[in-house]
Amino acid sequence: MPRQVPVIALDAMGGDYGPEVTVPAALDCLEEFKDLRLILVGQQEAIEAQLARYAVPQSDRLRICHASQVVTMDDLPSKALRGKRDSSMRVALNLVRDGQASACVSAGNTGALMAMARFVLKTIPGIDRPAIIVSLPSKHGHTHILDMGANVDCSAEHLYQFAVMGHELVRAVENIEAPKVGLLNIGEEEIKGNEQVKQAAKLLANSHLNFIGYVEGDDIFMGEVDIVVTDGFVGNVALKAVEGLVRMLGQALKDGLQSSVYNRLVGVLALPVLKSLKHRFDPRRYNGATLLGLKGIVIKSHGDADRYAFANAIRMALLEIDKAVPQRIGERVASAICAQADLGLPARVKSA
Amino acid sequence: MPRQVPVIALDAMGGDYGPEVTVPAALDCLEEFKDLRLILVGQQEAIEAQLARYAVPQSDRLRICHASQVVTMDDLPSKALRGKRDSSMRVALNLVRDGQASACVSAGNTGALMAMARFVLKTIPGIDRPAIIVSLPSKHGHTHILDMGANVDCSAEHLYQFAVMGHELVRAVENIEAPKVGLLNIGEEEIKGNEQVKQAAKLLANSHLNFIGYVEGDDIFMGEVDIVVTDGFVGNVALKAVEGLVRMLGQALKDGLQSSVYNRLVGVLALPVLKSLKHRFDPRRYNGATLLGLKGIVIKSHGDADRYAFANAIRMALLEIDKAVPQRIGERVASAICAQADLGLPARVKSA
Repeated sequence: MPRQVPVIALDAMGGDYGPEVTVPAALDCLEEFKDLRLILVGQQEAIEAQLARYAVPQSDRLRICHASQVVTMDDLPSKALRGKRDSSMRVALNLVRDGQASACVSAGNTGALMAMARFVLKTIPGIDRPAIIVSLPSKHGHTHILDMGANVDCSAEHLYQFAVMGHELVRAVENIEAPKVGLLNIGEEEIKGNEQVKQAAKLLANSHLNFIGYVEGDDIFMGEVDIVVTDGFVGNVALKAVEGLVRMLGQALKDGLQSSVYNRLVGVLALPVLKSLKHRFDPRRYNGATLLGLKGIVIKSHGDADRYAFANAIRMALLEIDKAVPQRIGERVASAICAQADLGLPARVKSA
Repeated sequence: MPRQVPVIALDAMGGDYGPEVTVPAALDCLEEFKDLRLILVGQQEAIEAQLARYAVPQSDRLRICHASQVVTMDDLPSKALRGKRDSSMRVALNLVRDGQASACVSAGNTGALMAMARFVLKTIPGIDRPAIIVSLPSKHGHTHILDMGANVDCSAEHLYQFAVMGHELVRAVENIEAPKVGLLNIGEEEIKGNEQVKQAAKLLANSHLNFIGYVEGDDIFMGEVDIVVTDGFVGNVALKAVEGLVRMLGQALKDGLQSSVYNRLVGVLALPVLKSLKHRFDPRRYNGATLLGLKGIVIKSHGDADRYAFANAIRMALLEIDKAVPQRIGERVASAICAQADLGLPARVKSA
């Protein structure tokens, strides 16, 4: 079977900077991937104005799909869902649903994107709720964590489903045959975990997954686990806490290296080592969270992504198209559901 | 009223290093605080062996209280509670209960310490559950967070009680008249928070506290909130994640500054600025978590605390004795319960 030409629909209006960032990032990716096609969805004039800045020759690999509305960061998801049917976000998702694109990338409002994606694309049979998965740097590579905020209250079955989805994604995009799955918990014996976590551990221990047991917050960075499973409340708080700390430390280092003539000189001399560290831990390299569990590929970019970061989110979409991630999850969930039925688990998991 | 002489009972056997760390830290504090008295609780021989190393002159400010057992890090809290009644941890808590000491400091097993402290000292009337509060560095000072792992599932009333306790502690030890209280949540509108968090926000908004509303994970470090309230699962994961990240970044910086002759030279030149940063964010400076809500002062030191860090936990105990933290919480809770009764809240809060 010949490989299909990848087509990605970009919500060109999303994020803090809109076309100012999405258009040049799109052009960078077209330059890098010679068979890639992109559809820039959004207000035609605004997109054309940006394209004009870069003097791009006409190409059938890039087209604009006009959408009159824009979802703002303040829009309530339910209102955006009902009231912004001609938004760039919604139209980009429609293109995926209609088979005109294989993935959608948006830097817009996360809640609205999740609500619209669920409504437009639907979830994979067997998956109750989509989850958001991100990748963070660790000692020996990186760790994938889900859910990062889509689901506040999660049952044991939801956590189990997150693990199955994360497993397939990581197998596909990292080429790890049996990625190590850990369940996020706290260290105190006896009061270890709430009921959902304890039940999820049982489901995972009886599954096909390479479940290594409970992990704690610091294990995210220790490099001994590939996938960390938790609910969206805990995941979101942990991610934001880590981001806040990095910002604070970065600022303190910057201030420290500005605090005297001597320290400014040290700062200049230290540039090579600081640059290499910055590159290794640069959040822009890790930009592109996947909305996992949908019948289509949806990548959420950070709202404040710049050109380099947004291009990384497009690269992530391309990789997931190449690896057919939703199809793999669909197949795995179907077989996992059968396996669970054999274990005599409740009907609501089996029939999901 | 003349100020009472402060007496602190130290679990001399607790932590990864036992008397090797607790004894010199105790001596440092006796040197620093001229009216302080310390009771070293634990195996007499082991403690005397350490004291001998430091050639300490006899002093009525330091005495040993023999306890034959030691709670290990692997002991289950319930087993330690039942089976280790002559442990250094338990005997140190007994001294507080019996009025022979005003505070207990232990670097031992957190779960066992919490279980024993609740059993021996009891909770303050009106407080359902004690919580663990820690302080972390922020942009403009530091932020106090609770609960850090004592309570996995928390109701709205529990979160509210945590806020009341944190408020009194921070008022007392930081001399802030109306510390800013934030409730940890995630940023997505509509799916904002689970039921407990939403209900807790209502209780807090109607309270005497300076409640600034929801905060997110990164706000812990932004310096705009004094007390962050969350359940023990989320708090513990966030704290551990942050610790893990700091370790990873510290190691990466160290490796980077060792990676070539040039970088080693840069590392030497950068020592002053690195040292000042290390001092500002040194976790040892922040050692000493308070078990809040008990009828006595109990400070938990990190298990791997060194002499400097353990001495900081003793200093924290001393400060809380000086400020009579449990008494202040008791008074405040009594009046808060009355206020809640006026608001027509459920009987179980009123009668707690």
